[in-house]
Amino acid sequence: MMSRCMARIWGGIPTLLIYLLAAVPAQAADPLRSWADGPTKDAIMEFVANVTKEGGSDYVPPEERIAVFDNDGTLWAEKPLYFQLFYAIDKVKEKAPEHPEWKKQEPFASILEGDPRKALEGGKPALMKLLAATHSGMTGNEFHESVSNWLATARHPKYRQLYTEMVYQPMLELLRHLRANGFKTFIVSGGGVDFVRAFSEETYGIPPEQVVGSSLKAKYQVKDGQPVLVKIPEINLIDDKEGKPVGIYQYIGRRPIFAAGNSDGDLQMLEYTTAGPGPRFGLLLHHTDSGREWAYDRNSHVGRLDEALKAAPERGWTVVDMQNDWRTVFPFEKK
Amino acid sequence: MMSRCMARIWGGIPTLLIYLLAAVPAQAADPLRSWADGPTKDAIMEFVANVTKEGGSDYVPPEERIAVFDNDGTLWAEKPLYFQLFYAIDKVKEKAPEHPEWKKQEPFASILEGDPRKALEGGKPALMKLLAATHSGMTGNEFHESVSNWLATARHPKYRQLYTEMVYQPMLELLRHLRANGFKTFIVSGGGVDFVRAFSEETYGIPPEQVVGSSLKAKYQVKDGQPVLVKIPEINLIDDKEGKPVGIYQYIGRRPIFAAGNSDGDLQMLEYTTAGPGPRFGLLLHHTDSGREWAYDRNSHVGRLDEALKAAPERGWTVVDMQNDWRTVFPFEKK
Repeated sequence: MMSRCMARIWGGIPTLLIYLLAAVPAQAADPLRSWADGPTKDAIMEFVANVTKEGGSDYVPPEERIAVFDNDGTLWAEKPLYFQLFYAIDKVKEKAPEHPEWKKQEPFASILEGDPRKALEGGKPALMKLLAATHSGMTGNEFHESVSNWLATARHPKYRQLYTEMVYQPMLELLRHLRANGFKTFIVSGGGVDFVRAFSEETYGIPPEQVVGSSLKAKYQVKDGQPVLVKIPEINLIDDKEGKPVGIYQYIGRRPIFAAGNSDGDLQMLEYTTAGPGPRFGLLLHHTDSGREWAYDRNSHVGRLDEALKAAPERGWTVVDMQNDWRTVFPFEKK
Repeated sequence: MMSRCMARIWGGIPTLLIYLLAAVPAQAADPLRSWADGPTKDAIMEFVANVTKEGGSDYVPPEERIAVFDNDGTLWAEKPLYFQLFYAIDKVKEKAPEHPEWKKQEPFASILEGDPRKALEGGKPALMKLLAATHSGMTGNEFHESVSNWLATARHPKYRQLYTEMVYQPMLELLRHLRANGFKTFIVSGGGVDFVRAFSEETYGIPPEQVVGSSLKAKYQVKDGQPVLVKIPEINLIDDKEGKPVGIYQYIGRRPIFAAGNSDGDLQMLEYTTAGPGPRFGLLLHHTDSGREWAYDRNSHVGRLDEALKAAPERGWTVVDMQNDWRTVFPFEKK
């Protein structure tokens, strides 16, 4: 017969185990506290509950719980220009004294005259010149440091916040909620992979090896006895539109079950993700909040959203209405 | 005052916790039981102990514990030919009836006559023709299925084992030991990334998103309403020699602290990995076992090892002598 004391010991253990096992996922009572109550939040919570319910008809094993997020306009803001372009502009200004010829050469001349939009009217050739001048000819480490230093001091023209503060609080909560439920979260960005890797781990908890993005080619060299990777001004991958499923296929090698984006550049990623068998979630963030952020869609130059918004109802994608679905937009609002 | 019973409860909990926490890492007493006792095994055990010792001078935080492994000749065998070539050869034979012209076209003619070495004397153009015929023009899913089916039935010409049985038991233990100590293990293979992804998770416990390899380009298409990725016969990345650090930089985005290889194709990966600051481990597997496996190095056509072996002493790489350092080579030996 079990002694009373032993019974108390064994009786206590299950409780202890429950505390130990529950410690991480439980966190706070509401993991999505910056999301307003309503159908959008419910849809997310239900999807996560369904795919993690062992024995349930929608159960997905942890190794297949891949979630992909666009970055510009989905995890952090993208107005008035992609933040990476502000970096490039600042670097052009910094390097201008060594390049007097830039005063007469586009896209540099317009940048130096304070008109970046005009600079980019030159399309892809202009962009390539800008990237060649500011994103190549250095080692991967040098670029990483340059971006880190810039992010530590440069401020958003309107909000006067560090760019890494211009992230969406509800999306940070969503990333955490997915990871607490066994998801592996990836960024799949049209922006430069090296640029995003310089802050993704600290800002989003997403390590470099889970960032897919546009990239230049790189060359391996031994320089003064030190092996380095030198960024060269040739496109390796444009991770936008059709390039997003290609990037996912090449880097991740398996189809996600959850995808979040905010523009037509994310259409194919959402299409590819949600066309697979079993439970799928497509999230499309609609910027509807001219007060706290910006309101834009089909007429916007940056982050244009038209086709993807039209496709959402028939594809069953969940459209997030920023103004109504988010109680908080930026973390600094709460301070 | 604490009752005697409460004291027993609280006294019992630390023991329980230790069991719970130790359950995974401890496994068996010796995590590398197929490795012979001696300096090689000691070097590995010490490195792992040092980088995981919190507060120690060699401590490395978990997110930086990246370990990369070559595949052919490092995780599984590569003789008499890379196993992926056996797949390509079998596919050529299978498709030959639809291609009567192959009887007069290299590299197909030599393959059909049973002389794959002669077929490959045509160098890169011959290899590209072979890849175009057997590794492209289908979707990623179709290729994955084709490889899975082949691996489930095809047998090694000498050992008559499935190819996925031709893996090195000591390396399986090493992968597990590293992961149990917070390492993230990656494959960085000269072989095709899609080919390796078809078996890496089941065979090595390495998920597709942690496999870097050579690749063809891919194109996104919607075919009969279904989004697919079609493999096209153009090289995307040759993940060999200088291409290995490039692949690591592009896919992983951070320098590993542990690298294992077996040929000159791994020289740059080992060089790049071990030249970084802090504790580093370079492992070079030397195939010295003509009895249980094969003995080969600088005169070998497949898996040539010359420069890397010469570089090992000055770089401080640990050379594994297969014959002396491994108690078991293949898992099936033990049966």
